[in-house]
Amino acid sequence: MYKLFSVDDHIIEPADVWSKRVPERFRGAAPHVIEEDGREVWVYEDRRNTTMGLNAVAGKPREEWSLEPSRFTDMIPGCYDPVERAKDMRSQGIFASVNFPTLPRFGGALFATFDDKELASACVSAWNDFVLDEWCAADPDMFVPMVICQLWDPKLAEAEIRRCVDKGAKALCFVEDPLPLGLPSFHHPEHWDPVFATCQEADLPVCMHIGSSGAGAVGNALAEDPYTPAIVPIAFAFASAARASINMMLSPIPRKFPDIKLVWSEGGIGWIPAALERADRQWERHLWSHNDELRPSELARRNMWFCMIEEPVGLKYRHDFTVDRILWESDYPHADTPFPHTQVQAKEVFDGVPDDEVEAITYKNAEQLFHHTLVAS
Amino acid sequence: MYKLFSVDDHIIEPADVWSKRVPERFRGAAPHVIEEDGREVWVYEDRRNTTMGLNAVAGKPREEWSLEPSRFTDMIPGCYDPVERAKDMRSQGIFASVNFPTLPRFGGALFATFDDKELASACVSAWNDFVLDEWCAADPDMFVPMVICQLWDPKLAEAEIRRCVDKGAKALCFVEDPLPLGLPSFHHPEHWDPVFATCQEADLPVCMHIGSSGAGAVGNALAEDPYTPAIVPIAFAFASAARASINMMLSPIPRKFPDIKLVWSEGGIGWIPAALERADRQWERHLWSHNDELRPSELARRNMWFCMIEEPVGLKYRHDFTVDRILWESDYPHADTPFPHTQVQAKEVFDGVPDDEVEAITYKNAEQLFHHTLVAS
Repeated sequence: MYKLFSVDDHIIEPADVWSKRVPERFRGAAPHVIEEDGREVWVYEDRRNTTMGLNAVAGKPREEWSLEPSRFTDMIPGCYDPVERAKDMRSQGIFASVNFPTLPRFGGALFATFDDKELASACVSAWNDFVLDEWCAADPDMFVPMVICQLWDPKLAEAEIRRCVDKGAKALCFVEDPLPLGLPSFHHPEHWDPVFATCQEADLPVCMHIGSSGAGAVGNALAEDPYTPAIVPIAFAFASAARASINMMLSPIPRKFPDIKLVWSEGGIGWIPAALERADRQWERHLWSHNDELRPSELARRNMWFCMIEEPVGLKYRHDFTVDRILWESDYPHADTPFPHTQVQAKEVFDGVPDDEVEAITYKNAEQLFHHTLVAS
Repeated sequence: MYKLFSVDDHIIEPADVWSKRVPERFRGAAPHVIEEDGREVWVYEDRRNTTMGLNAVAGKPREEWSLEPSRFTDMIPGCYDPVERAKDMRSQGIFASVNFPTLPRFGGALFATFDDKELASACVSAWNDFVLDEWCAADPDMFVPMVICQLWDPKLAEAEIRRCVDKGAKALCFVEDPLPLGLPSFHHPEHWDPVFATCQEADLPVCMHIGSSGAGAVGNALAEDPYTPAIVPIAFAFASAARASINMMLSPIPRKFPDIKLVWSEGGIGWIPAALERADRQWERHLWSHNDELRPSELARRNMWFCMIEEPVGLKYRHDFTVDRILWESDYPHADTPFPHTQVQAKEVFDGVPDDEVEAITYKNAEQLFHHTLVAS
C-alpha cells in the first residue's frame, strides 16, 4: 500500500462557519445559507451565490458529474464534515491532507471584493478559526492547517498570518497572481513584502491553486459561451500554473526572499522541463543575466514545489526537473480525485518508479515542506 | 548545412500597402503612415498606432532590443523589403518562408475592429493582394503565400479565401481563438463552417500564431503593469498555443472537417505530451467518450502541426508526440529569431537527432503541408 500525503484537497464549508464566529453586528452581512426556490444558497453583503459545493462530485457516478450540488445533502458528508473526511482519506491510504477553501475561492480572494473591509477581515479570521479550531482540530494528524489572509492589505495580512501561526498554522493559501484581481503584481518592488517576509520567517509554504486569480478574459469568455463544454478549461488548467509560476520566477519575490517556499497546486508537472528551458532562454536573450545571477530554472528548483495527481508523462520526465520538488495531491472532492480508487490508480501511475522516488513524491517531500509527520494508522 | 523551411516569419508592411491598393474613397481612412513628433506613425480610421515594426530587432545587438523601432529606417531592410528578406533568408540556409502580418495583427484581427466594415474588407483584400502580387511575387521560390480573411463575416471570408486561392494562396492566417475577440467560439455548431470547409476543400493549412487572439485579461493587466518586465509574457507565451490548441481539440471543427490542417505557430512543442495526456484523461473522465469516438490526442496527431525554433527539451520528447507533426520556424525579425546565426544554432539544437527526423522537422513536413517544394539555391 502507498502511504499518501495529499497537498491539495478542498473543504466545502458548513453553513455556520461565519455566522457562529463573526461579531454580532456582521451576522447579517457575513456568509450564511438560506433556503430559496427549493435549494440552498449562500448570501453575503448584497450578493447570492449558488455554489454550494463547487464540483463536489466525490463518490458519485460519472453520469452525475455535470450536476452541481444544490444543497449539502446532495454531497457525501466527507465534503463538509472533517470526521467523515478523515475516514474517507484513511480508507484511501491518505494520512495527511492540506485543504483549500471553496466559498472564499481557492486563494481567499472573495473577501477582497467585499465593500465593507472590516466585515471582510472578520470573515477571513472566521474561516481561519474554523480551519484551526474545528476542521483541523477534529483530526490533527490528518489535517495540515492552512490559512488565508487579507489580500487587499498586506500589513493586515501579516498580522493575521502571525496570529494563525501562533495557533498552529503550517501553510498560507494565497493567489497565484494578484494582478488579474486588480491588486499590485508580484513585480511591485515592495508591496507584498509583509506577506512573503512573514512566511519566510515562519517557514510557512505559500500554496497557490490553479484558478485562484480568476480565469482572465479568455476563461471568463469561455464560461459565458453557451457552446464551450466545461471540459475545455479543465483540460488546459495546467496553463494557469505555468503562467503564474513563470511570472513568479521572473519576479523579485524569490530573489528578495531566498528561503521562501512556493507551492503550485494542481498545475501538473509534465510541462515544467520545457517551460524552464524557455524561461531560461528568454532570460539569457533579453539580457536579464546582466542584472541578475539567478536563472528562472534555478529559482524553480530552489523555491518552488509542483503537484500532480496522476501524470505518467510528468513522472517520465521527472529527472528533467527534480524529484524532490514534486508533491502528490488527491483533489477530494473534485472530479479529478482518484477517490474511491486511490490505491489502484497510484499503482498504475507509480508502477516502475523506484521506491525512494515514489516515497519522496507521495509523502516525504510534503512531510519536510509542511513540517507535518505522516502518522499511518 | 541544414536546409530550412521556416513556417513562421513576419512581414513589416511597407507604408504604401493599403494606400496604393484600396479604392480612392477609402484612402484617407485606410492605414497610411504620417510623420509626427519626429517619428513615423500608422493612422487608420480615427486611430494612431506607433507600432512601426513590432519587436523587429533582427540584426541588432541585444542591448538595443528593448527599443521599438520608431521609423522604417530603424530596421534592417529585410524587415519590409522582400528582395532583401530573401537574401537574409538564403544567407541562413532558409529557402522557404511563411509570413504573418504585423499591422493587421498576427491573425488579421485588426480589421474586425474597424467601424466601417466595407473599408475593413477592402483592407483585408489589399493586404492579400500585397502578399500575393508584391511580397511573394518578388521571390516565388522563397515565399509561401498566406492570406488573411474577414473574421467578422465567415461568408465574406469564404469568398476572399476562394479569390486568393485562385491567385495562388497556399495557407490561411487565422486567429487561435475567436472568443476573446468578441466573436463566436470554435464550439459554435456552424458559425465557422464556411471558413474551415473552404480550407479543407482547397487543402489550405490554417496557421494560428500565439498572441493572435489578444492577450486576455491577464496579459492586458500585465501589459499595463508598470513593474512587470516584457520578458514575462514572452517566457510563458507557449501557454497561449496550449490553451488554444486544446480548445480546438475539444471543439467540433476537426470532427466536422476530418481533413482540416491546423498549425499552431510559435507555441513550442515540449509541453505537448503532458497536455495531450491531460486532455485525453479529462475526455475520458467527463464521459466525452460517450458522444465522440476521437480522443484529443488522436485529433492532435491527425489534424495539427506544432512549431519550434530552438527547443532541445521538446526535441528530446518528440517521440512522445510525433515527428511528422513538428515544423521549424525562424521568427525573423523578432527577438526569438536565431538570425544571423541560424546554422550554428540549428547544429546545437539538432545535434544527435537522426538525419531523417531532422529533415522531416526542418523542411520535409512543411513541404508536404504547404505544397511548396524547397529550392535550395
